[in-house]
Amino acid sequence: MSVLDDIDPRHHVVIIGCGFGGLFAARALKRAPVRVTLIDRTNHHLFQPLLYQVATGILSEGQIAPAIRDVFRNYRSLRVVLAEVEHIDVAARQVHADEFGHALTIDYDSLIVAGGARTSYFGHDEFRDAAAGMKSLDDALALRGQIFGAFELAEAEADEEERQRLMTFVVVGGGPTGVEMAGQLKELSRRALHRNYRRIDPRHTRVVLVEGLDRLVSSMGPRLSRLTARDLDRMGVEIHLGAMVTNMDDQGVEITKKDGATERIPAATKVWAAGTRASGLGAHLAEAAGVQTDKAGRVVVAPDCSVPGHPEIFVVGDLMALHDLPAVAEVAMQSGAHASHTIVRRLEGKPARPFRYHDLGTLAVISRFRAVAKIGPLRVGGFIGWLLWLVVHVTFLTGFKNRFGALTRWAVSFVGRGRYERALIGRWVARAKRATKSA
Amino acid sequence: MSVLDDIDPRHHVVIIGCGFGGLFAARALKRAPVRVTLIDRTNHHLFQPLLYQVATGILSEGQIAPAIRDVFRNYRSLRVVLAEVEHIDVAARQVHADEFGHALTIDYDSLIVAGGARTSYFGHDEFRDAAAGMKSLDDALALRGQIFGAFELAEAEADEEERQRLMTFVVVGGGPTGVEMAGQLKELSRRALHRNYRRIDPRHTRVVLVEGLDRLVSSMGPRLSRLTARDLDRMGVEIHLGAMVTNMDDQGVEITKKDGATERIPAATKVWAAGTRASGLGAHLAEAAGVQTDKAGRVVVAPDCSVPGHPEIFVVGDLMALHDLPAVAEVAMQSGAHASHTIVRRLEGKPARPFRYHDLGTLAVISRFRAVAKIGPLRVGGFIGWLLWLVVHVTFLTGFKNRFGALTRWAVSFVGRGRYERALIGRWVARAKRATKSA
Repeated sequence: MSVLDDIDPRHHVVIIGCGFGGLFAARALKRAPVRVTLIDRTNHHLFQPLLYQVATGILSEGQIAPAIRDVFRNYRSLRVVLAEVEHIDVAARQVHADEFGHALTIDYDSLIVAGGARTSYFGHDEFRDAAAGMKSLDDALALRGQIFGAFELAEAEADEEERQRLMTFVVVGGGPTGVEMAGQLKELSRRALHRNYRRIDPRHTRVVLVEGLDRLVSSMGPRLSRLTARDLDRMGVEIHLGAMVTNMDDQGVEITKKDGATERIPAATKVWAAGTRASGLGAHLAEAAGVQTDKAGRVVVAPDCSVPGHPEIFVVGDLMALHDLPAVAEVAMQSGAHASHTIVRRLEGKPARPFRYHDLGTLAVISRFRAVAKIGPLRVGGFIGWLLWLVVHVTFLTGFKNRFGALTRWAVSFVGRGRYERALIGRWVARAKRATKSA
Repeated sequence: MSVLDDIDPRHHVVIIGCGFGGLFAARALKRAPVRVTLIDRTNHHLFQPLLYQVATGILSEGQIAPAIRDVFRNYRSLRVVLAEVEHIDVAARQVHADEFGHALTIDYDSLIVAGGARTSYFGHDEFRDAAAGMKSLDDALALRGQIFGAFELAEAEADEEERQRLMTFVVVGGGPTGVEMAGQLKELSRRALHRNYRRIDPRHTRVVLVEGLDRLVSSMGPRLSRLTARDLDRMGVEIHLGAMVTNMDDQGVEITKKDGATERIPAATKVWAAGTRASGLGAHLAEAAGVQTDKAGRVVVAPDCSVPGHPEIFVVGDLMALHDLPAVAEVAMQSGAHASHTIVRRLEGKPARPFRYHDLGTLAVISRFRAVAKIGPLRVGGFIGWLLWLVVHVTFLTGFKNRFGALTRWAVSFVGRGRYERALIGRWVARAKRATKSA
């Protein structure tokens, strides 16, 4: 059964995934003479760079996750399908998917695979139970419950040692996500929770940032790495560089330094911002089309982002291996749009062009009013960096209403000290109870 | 073990519950020469009249549920305890509670019990699995997932009859909550989801409102009942008056009219806004103190809201049976404050005064720009009623930041057509899948 009941003779582009890659691929086809089917497992696009703000109670889910159907409501030739892709039949040019238990077969003329990445525990899948990832809304909401729940458990705890464990947060990974998370946890404990408790003082919260390399935000160059470390250090974040997580459980984290020295950090809450690997779709597609993947599981593509031997299939974003480009939102946006432009050029009888990435820069917020930014040749930190962060994020937040709402929240949490989203619902309380009992 | 480590010789007031009754009781003690312990099972106060807006994606959880600790951060003599009350020892003047697995005993000099109400299925507890209540954030979030999930399942469904079942919503109970929910479901399907789907047309959504009495919003008088029915009817809400729900399962609802005629309505989503009964604390306290409860399980109190024979214990809000007062927010606020004022008067050696309820009125929103309002001798509907609703709700939303955020959202959803909070997270998708499989 195909979801397309009506017969539309136009070239059919199927896009798998509505992260930044899929979103920008679909947008680039708005006025193209094609019909589009956009398949995603969830009903929302996720503005992942702000996920840490959902986890720490600044933004609500909806503010960083607009409904895909709503984003594309005015795209008359675009259909959104909520389904899990199970198999790509490269020979028959068909995508097989599961749509809430219904088997779905969708024929394509061109296919853009934007399956993205998932959390990688670097072979330590047993860490998954102890440390939340930072990839989905589910991750962020689970983390939000854990974070605010930890302070509640600490306030109820008579034993001082256990109280300190509950108020210790370990962030694994010193890239932008880890740095923003660590900074925000400090902000939360220093400002937002001020005067909220009677037994504990949230300012005594211990935030530990663990990074395997010798520098934080290493992609931003040595100067910004130093600036980031200095700013975080001044806020009281404990930084461990050149340290690997070698063990992790409910009770805490064990880190091992390069010299072999190990340290055990008792900590109730662990955030895994250390790494990602390509979605399983990469390996599946590579096998189906007889092409290579790199060691991160990404599909090695031709210079125009198409799959070698299959010019009708494109792989973009985090799932694409090309010129050692990093797995960042900006690459996904540009490669997604490039794939669509290539499809349109072909329909117009024009030759494909190679994908050229324009690096617009990287940003990481450290605290309110402080950020580091690498934009072109520019390297800035402090307040100017923060202003750049604000402009870029407001510009890229999808849709006016989200932008306006986010600005309101930011005004509340940067100028004021509030955190809107602190409500703990039933299952978090249940989780917290289990945590106490196992302690 | 008492949570109060420090010795404070002042009169100790313990308040159980932080709904409207507990919140206003605590507020009224801000400058009183007492220390206060406020116990709640959740970490938030819930602005329940707007719960339907969380369920329908207009507001986020945080906007109607501020953290209790944050509300009272500047109350130096108030301590918030997150715990489940298990037992009240009236003779020893102690409250026994479970604080995340820790047994807690709290001595009191005065006790204010504001345990509130929970959903009542009128003896049909088996309806609980089929119909979500409207009492907690958990209820509202589960309902949100069900509502937006139902449209997704309908879009994926080939069978027309099943599609119509998925797009049918039955609201049980024609009081303000049921009326607001039914109106909002129509608004959602007529406006917010416009152009979002390709196979289904959300405007064909069937919304059924079932009420056992012969009138909607019966507490507001016959004229407003007629106005409400007329407005809802014009929007396309199907109203069944004098009808009882006699059966309910995953697949639908059976209603029985007064003349004995039954009708089966196939419907995927059911909302139970029909009734509440007092929290179990009422029966427990009545037994412990040797006093009466009414048939709704509420404690029969003396005219000053205290428990007969135990002047140091007060019962307020939905848990209190006094002069046939209704279980509404306004009664809870005023009785909560009255109990605190009575405690202070006693400490000052003044006699207690009987509680006098000042009925400030009732409101129900029907659609954007239309509401019915009964305020003193005033009975208004339409746009004027809606303006009154807006003023009252903005005034009573706890805390400036919530007020401002809610106004933004309302601007978006009343003037525009958006719904911020539509993101379905994992467990809702899982639930939707189960729903399809059982179908």
